[in-house]
Amino acid sequence: MVVQCRVVYLVAILLYCLFLQIKSREVTNKPNIVLLMADDLGYGDLSSYGHPTQEYGAIDTLAAEGIRFTQWLTASSLCTPSRAALLTGRLPVRLGVYGHLEVFRVGSQHGLPKDEITIPEALKKHGYKTGMVGKWHLGMNEFHNDDGRHLPIHHGFDTVGYNIPFTNHWQCDDTGVHLEHPLRSICFLYYNTTIVQQPVKLQQLTSLLVLDAKAFIHENQDHPFFFYFSFINVHDAMFAGDKFKGKSKRGIYGDCVNDMSWAVGEVIDTLKQLSLENNTLVLFTSDHGPHTELCNEGGVAGSFKGGKGSTWEGGFRVPGIAWWPGTIKPGQTSTAVISSLDLYPTILDMINGSVSDDVTYDGQSVKDAILENTDTGTRVLFYYCSDRLNAVRYGPYKFHFFTCEEYNPAIHKVCKHGVPQENFYQCLPCDGKSIKVHDPPIMFNVEQDPSELYPLDINRHSDILEKVVEALLSHKETLTVRPSLLVTSIPSLHPCCNPPYCTCDKTKLSWQTCDAKQ
Amino acid sequence: MVVQCRVVYLVAILLYCLFLQIKSREVTNKPNIVLLMADDLGYGDLSSYGHPTQEYGAIDTLAAEGIRFTQWLTASSLCTPSRAALLTGRLPVRLGVYGHLEVFRVGSQHGLPKDEITIPEALKKHGYKTGMVGKWHLGMNEFHNDDGRHLPIHHGFDTVGYNIPFTNHWQCDDTGVHLEHPLRSICFLYYNTTIVQQPVKLQQLTSLLVLDAKAFIHENQDHPFFFYFSFINVHDAMFAGDKFKGKSKRGIYGDCVNDMSWAVGEVIDTLKQLSLENNTLVLFTSDHGPHTELCNEGGVAGSFKGGKGSTWEGGFRVPGIAWWPGTIKPGQTSTAVISSLDLYPTILDMINGSVSDDVTYDGQSVKDAILENTDTGTRVLFYYCSDRLNAVRYGPYKFHFFTCEEYNPAIHKVCKHGVPQENFYQCLPCDGKSIKVHDPPIMFNVEQDPSELYPLDINRHSDILEKVVEALLSHKETLTVRPSLLVTSIPSLHPCCNPPYCTCDKTKLSWQTCDAKQ
Repeated sequence: MVVQCRVVYLVAILLYCLFLQIKSREVTNKPNIVLLMADDLGYGDLSSYGHPTQEYGAIDTLAAEGIRFTQWLTASSLCTPSRAALLTGRLPVRLGVYGHLEVFRVGSQHGLPKDEITIPEALKKHGYKTGMVGKWHLGMNEFHNDDGRHLPIHHGFDTVGYNIPFTNHWQCDDTGVHLEHPLRSICFLYYNTTIVQQPVKLQQLTSLLVLDAKAFIHENQDHPFFFYFSFINVHDAMFAGDKFKGKSKRGIYGDCVNDMSWAVGEVIDTLKQLSLENNTLVLFTSDHGPHTELCNEGGVAGSFKGGKGSTWEGGFRVPGIAWWPGTIKPGQTSTAVISSLDLYPTILDMINGSVSDDVTYDGQSVKDAILENTDTGTRVLFYYCSDRLNAVRYGPYKFHFFTCEEYNPAIHKVCKHGVPQENFYQCLPCDGKSIKVHDPPIMFNVEQDPSELYPLDINRHSDILEKVVEALLSHKETLTVRPSLLVTSIPSLHPCCNPPYCTCDKTKLSWQTCDAKQ
Repeated sequence: MVVQCRVVYLVAILLYCLFLQIKSREVTNKPNIVLLMADDLGYGDLSSYGHPTQEYGAIDTLAAEGIRFTQWLTASSLCTPSRAALLTGRLPVRLGVYGHLEVFRVGSQHGLPKDEITIPEALKKHGYKTGMVGKWHLGMNEFHNDDGRHLPIHHGFDTVGYNIPFTNHWQCDDTGVHLEHPLRSICFLYYNTTIVQQPVKLQQLTSLLVLDAKAFIHENQDHPFFFYFSFINVHDAMFAGDKFKGKSKRGIYGDCVNDMSWAVGEVIDTLKQLSLENNTLVLFTSDHGPHTELCNEGGVAGSFKGGKGSTWEGGFRVPGIAWWPGTIKPGQTSTAVISSLDLYPTILDMINGSVSDDVTYDGQSVKDAILENTDTGTRVLFYYCSDRLNAVRYGPYKFHFFTCEEYNPAIHKVCKHGVPQENFYQCLPCDGKSIKVHDPPIMFNVEQDPSELYPLDINRHSDILEKVVEALLSHKETLTVRPSLLVTSIPSLHPCCNPPYCTCDKTKLSWQTCDAKQ
């Protein structure tokens, strides 16, 4: 009798273990994915990436508890093209997201092309719930100033909370520090496709975004979900939440990083409260390098040259962190070469999905690099400035065909006492007197010389140059350049929440109320 | 009876706990201290301090398991004065360790003055056993080329293993890469006060130092001990152990950092094997910033300006890590301002000792900053170049009275393909055409603007300038400048292990044999 009991007991345990394993396998096959995207955060802007006075915060904890990448590159050093590429896995030239306006503006009539498949669209086919808050910058209106035909809901995001269609902090600051006559009428906040605040109060925005993020996670805790938290920080650091303003040793930029870091902590806490952390891959990165021309209101690229708008490493190299307790071992650092273009194929790979065969993707799955800390081999990555190929990375080498003159804001005296006097980009447009042509290209080993200071003798590396030329030709063969969509800006497309005043504030409505309203 | 038993049992447990507590307190009152000192390692040279391709190693683990300081400053940006100040807690001008030779050379007849009390001398009074290996650079001979009257044994170190009196890697490299005619006769290795290898084989030296370090710890495990492991890395990165050469993604500099990191790991493992880790404070730092003029064979200062020999932050700001399992909480980052000058008073404070009342010290105890991660308040720190005060740090501010022109080796074209063509220091001597005088001084907030790019308007900060002037006057009142000891170099003091050949290798003798020989 006793023996029989024991057998039954053991079988029960076995079955239970089997059940747990199946359940856990089921769960792991469709992990939630949270993509945390900083705006203009440079490689050297976080404590965990070497900033000496930036406070250690939740983003750094994420790095300490997960894997920190040190060779993570974006697809562009400007917001719109970088974000378009990130969400589609395709270079901006294929998307038409390049051109003389550089980014989508308030009156742009275009957006990310609808025939391009985004990560959330692909994930929806696998049963994912999708949501986003924050900065969009991939288009707004098409025919009327309130049609919102390019907003995130038309690109695969089911639930869209508070969002801003582009970033123009410089025009929104009414303190008189930057502009005598700020253009605050073109500073507004959307809730999904409705303008709810004009002009936007950027100081309080992070906390609104956090409320939305929490609500989304709570509502979707029983389904696999994809959530894109696209921060309004740290672009032109001017606005930080009251809890953070004036507190950082580093000044306003540090305040804004801390504002964002707090938001990251809130998201992580929510995942933990709902016991979702073991089934959620959290990714943190930035859209490109720092806006160094803004001095203490812009970020820093660590020991890299250049920043936003440039094809030096400072423009493309960003922090990249992956966190997934129980699956990603804590405390890891990886020097594997990763591109933001990899996210699309990687995320699909993570859920056992696959990319379309009839679409050319520019990245590759780096699932093993993220989960197992493996290397990614010899990568070939392209550094475009608009539709012109400025540079190519091939393995540890980088070849520059065109470079932008190295910029030193201190010498240019545009930042009296650290406060910028102008908002401009030294390396834009991609043509012009600040651009230098290199024929033959200049060559660096960016793993041995990350600051790109000591060019190698290209004649002694003709074998590598040959391979690069080969890779370039293959790339060009796959390349169908879409006509530029960043060409026109039409004043009649400027939104106005209540004509002719264009002033409103409906943010006091709760998330639920707003959602019901959509 | 049962109750009685329980009472006895509880009393026994209580007594045992009390005993443990007393034992632990006893132990904690006299912790072992291991001081790990890198040579010319820049702020940005470690993975944990933001280097993108430097491999993550044991030094980074030390940081992850302990506290990592981001505002740790040395007392000088040159080897000899920095090391003299570190061991005595006093500025180099008080010690006479400054002057036109800049550092002690092979024929110097002086050394660190004998009337200056070093950390090991102070600790010996508290019953500590003291030992060192590696780079010394505080003097060698006085009257004869083999008297070794300035070597570490005469400055409080009971046990001295393999050591080199100064670093001249450049002159020791016989590969033809750097010099057509290297001066290998002045490259030698001491064992305590005896030359055991001439010319020194730098490639294998780290492993010899590690053997000595392990032997010292084993032999002294039952006493409180102080061990100074002064690495031969990463000064002029040319030599790395066979296990590391050609392995780092970063190239030769990375190999040398990995060589050192391995040594750090061996020391930590030894402490753990002997169960000493909970009773040992391990400190890791560098003597000053990187020798940026050496390009890929020199280090990087992260986002700081300048390097070795300069009074920009890049010259003075170094990695600083403290590790003490069970006492220092793991995973901490501190932005407290720390000076290497603090080590003397701090170490004495740690063991409940005190500094002499009749000696002027330039640091303060930062015990709480190390053990409790507290701030260090408004610090006043002096940046000397030789005996001239170039700059002062006051709280978050830094005032430059003299600066050295910013240096860009790429522009100066002294590093064809990353390999240096010369071994020189842009900012030395402290006088000359590259030095700029600032009257009034230029002022930076180095917490908000660590790269020292955006000078503040000194007229708007006259209150702070007044305080700085006050602090300067107080400092000058305490200052007795000792005449310079870095003045002469006498060829007859050049050592020779077996005249007239000056060639020998006795390193195959074991540690014990060598020790017995002394």
